[in-house]
Amino acid sequence: MSVNLRIPGPTPCPDDVLQAMSRQMINHRGPEFADMLNRITASLQKLFQTKSDVLTLTSAGTGAIESAVVNTLSAGDRALCVSIGVFGDRFADIARTYGVEVDKVDFELGTAADPQAVADALKKGGSYKAVMVTHNETSTGVTNDLGAIAKAIRSVRPDILILVDAISSLGSVPLPIDEWDLDVVFTGSQKGWMVPPGMSMVSVSKRAWDAIEQARIPRYYFDYKKARSFLEKGQTPWTPAVSVYFAMDVALQKLEAEGLASIHERHARLGQFTRDGVKALGLKLLAKDERYASNTVTAVWVPEGVEGSALTKMMRTEYNTVLAGGQGTLTGKIFRIGHLGLVSQADLQACLDALKLALPRVGFSPSGVGATA
Amino acid sequence: MSVNLRIPGPTPCPDDVLQAMSRQMINHRGPEFADMLNRITASLQKLFQTKSDVLTLTSAGTGAIESAVVNTLSAGDRALCVSIGVFGDRFADIARTYGVEVDKVDFELGTAADPQAVADALKKGGSYKAVMVTHNETSTGVTNDLGAIAKAIRSVRPDILILVDAISSLGSVPLPIDEWDLDVVFTGSQKGWMVPPGMSMVSVSKRAWDAIEQARIPRYYFDYKKARSFLEKGQTPWTPAVSVYFAMDVALQKLEAEGLASIHERHARLGQFTRDGVKALGLKLLAKDERYASNTVTAVWVPEGVEGSALTKMMRTEYNTVLAGGQGTLTGKIFRIGHLGLVSQADLQACLDALKLALPRVGFSPSGVGATA
Repeated sequence: MSVNLRIPGPTPCPDDVLQAMSRQMINHRGPEFADMLNRITASLQKLFQTKSDVLTLTSAGTGAIESAVVNTLSAGDRALCVSIGVFGDRFADIARTYGVEVDKVDFELGTAADPQAVADALKKGGSYKAVMVTHNETSTGVTNDLGAIAKAIRSVRPDILILVDAISSLGSVPLPIDEWDLDVVFTGSQKGWMVPPGMSMVSVSKRAWDAIEQARIPRYYFDYKKARSFLEKGQTPWTPAVSVYFAMDVALQKLEAEGLASIHERHARLGQFTRDGVKALGLKLLAKDERYASNTVTAVWVPEGVEGSALTKMMRTEYNTVLAGGQGTLTGKIFRIGHLGLVSQADLQACLDALKLALPRVGFSPSGVGATA
Repeated sequence: MSVNLRIPGPTPCPDDVLQAMSRQMINHRGPEFADMLNRITASLQKLFQTKSDVLTLTSAGTGAIESAVVNTLSAGDRALCVSIGVFGDRFADIARTYGVEVDKVDFELGTAADPQAVADALKKGGSYKAVMVTHNETSTGVTNDLGAIAKAIRSVRPDILILVDAISSLGSVPLPIDEWDLDVVFTGSQKGWMVPPGMSMVSVSKRAWDAIEQARIPRYYFDYKKARSFLEKGQTPWTPAVSVYFAMDVALQKLEAEGLASIHERHARLGQFTRDGVKALGLKLLAKDERYASNTVTAVWVPEGVEGSALTKMMRTEYNTVLAGGQGTLTGKIFRIGHLGLVSQADLQACLDALKLALPRVGFSPSGVGATA
């Protein structure tokens, strides 16, 4: 019996994507790689709904966050970071590491950012060079209303850079990059793209390229200008994770064949299915307002009387189901169910069935529902 | 007929290594990944001949170069860079990018660094914090006598940091890290390790850890302290290229079973075979002194009357053999044959046979031998 891998990435990959991973190596400076990279880039532009440049980097998602900061900003620049959890905090930490003066507008864990509050912070703050925002906060299972936030930002500062961590949203839930006028937007191969980790993908707007000319944080490995210049000849500046490119090439053909509307509908449907199932078990969502609950990952309060680590361990060892725990201050307090990429309603039903059996064995009685929330 | 991929990385991978690449995803924060990472780390320590920490990063080799600089140095620090080609120059470029004041000691392309000249530069230069040196210069097919260089450095400055780019040497040719008292030494999965690209591996000495405590170049994605801290729980700080770890796990078992002595002997033998074959064709090696010719990659002068790009194109399109061209100022002037990792004498004989047929078709007549050198 195969494992029910229900973490929000790495996500399970389809058989043909995995088969592509086992292809023999090719020359990353040769015509076959160039054809593939050009095909991948064009496909990503379609699925990103952007006419901007899309670059691929050999890194984890955190490398992509770092790349957005170091390419567009200078030490001493001021930026506003909209944080609703661990990954929003990480965005701010990275910017501060590189000397950016970051003001944070934080929202309570389990809530989405209020667009008006972001606009107010922008008005009050003054000379910000950029706003950093997480689209889907993987640590809390909350999706920001990024369209509304972008609109609120543009109403105050039409010129400001909007840098978006869309690692666990892009390709899974609606994110029309050009329509929302976003500048740097990045994701990772191991999320809804159904590809193993190792590649991150970044769209870079005209406004961002202008900023890059001025930006003075030192950069080399993650240099977008080098990446753009090599992309012109169908290459990456440094040796890419060739196998992950093979796999991405296959996965993108599948995703394009399915079409964005169907992909988004599928994620919305399975997100709702998961939330309904969790609530039917007598559990409580971390998302305070279900309208903002994520369609790629659901965060659930560990009920009173239950040890979070005991639950995830029992699910893994006795029910073959791998859940994610909580991160940061939510460690031990929540568990998370990933439902992005290659996942069926049957996989999620199996996960819910396992939870139903496991919970009483680790001390759950429905009377305790929500008591820790 | 399969392609004869004769570039110095990515190198061809064994079937069982490629099969491991197609394994389904697992939780990178779970016990199975931890067991694997601990196994990989212990095996790398053996093959690196070091008791120091060995960290793995999800990046190309250039990311590893950057990591060595940003973790151990501060802007304004002075460093000496020993360069014998493109990758030595890149090491210096990266350090300068991050504000390090780099003095270079350059040697003519095709030659190895003179240990005494390095010692003299150190004496003359004064307050250097580090020496950066490339073990095997992939762009020229020359291997530095790193043992002698390290000894010369230590005779002048027992305390200085020695940072070594061993991307295309470690695991293929002798490099006893602890015996030579080297501080940061890094390589990449796609070289002699017979694994697809996506992982770099770095050893970090006690002396380097002490330097890291003082070093002030900002770092996040490549932060060694974060990597060490997560390694203690069998994890990487950011989502690793899981498939490449699966593959490395298999490849390391093969390499350990073969043993370092045999691996080194094999590379030495095939390097000699390649050089002998190239010379028998009437071609000239770029390496001026064959004692320093690389056992992982052979660089050959494109003979007079031949266009380098015409030769590599004909070899690829008509003889199914992929060679590497020249880099930097050697573009079009040399071609390179990779013979590291999974390569047999038959593969190299096939490459030489193809060269023998292709060369006259692109204008080679033996009378022109060496005229461009």
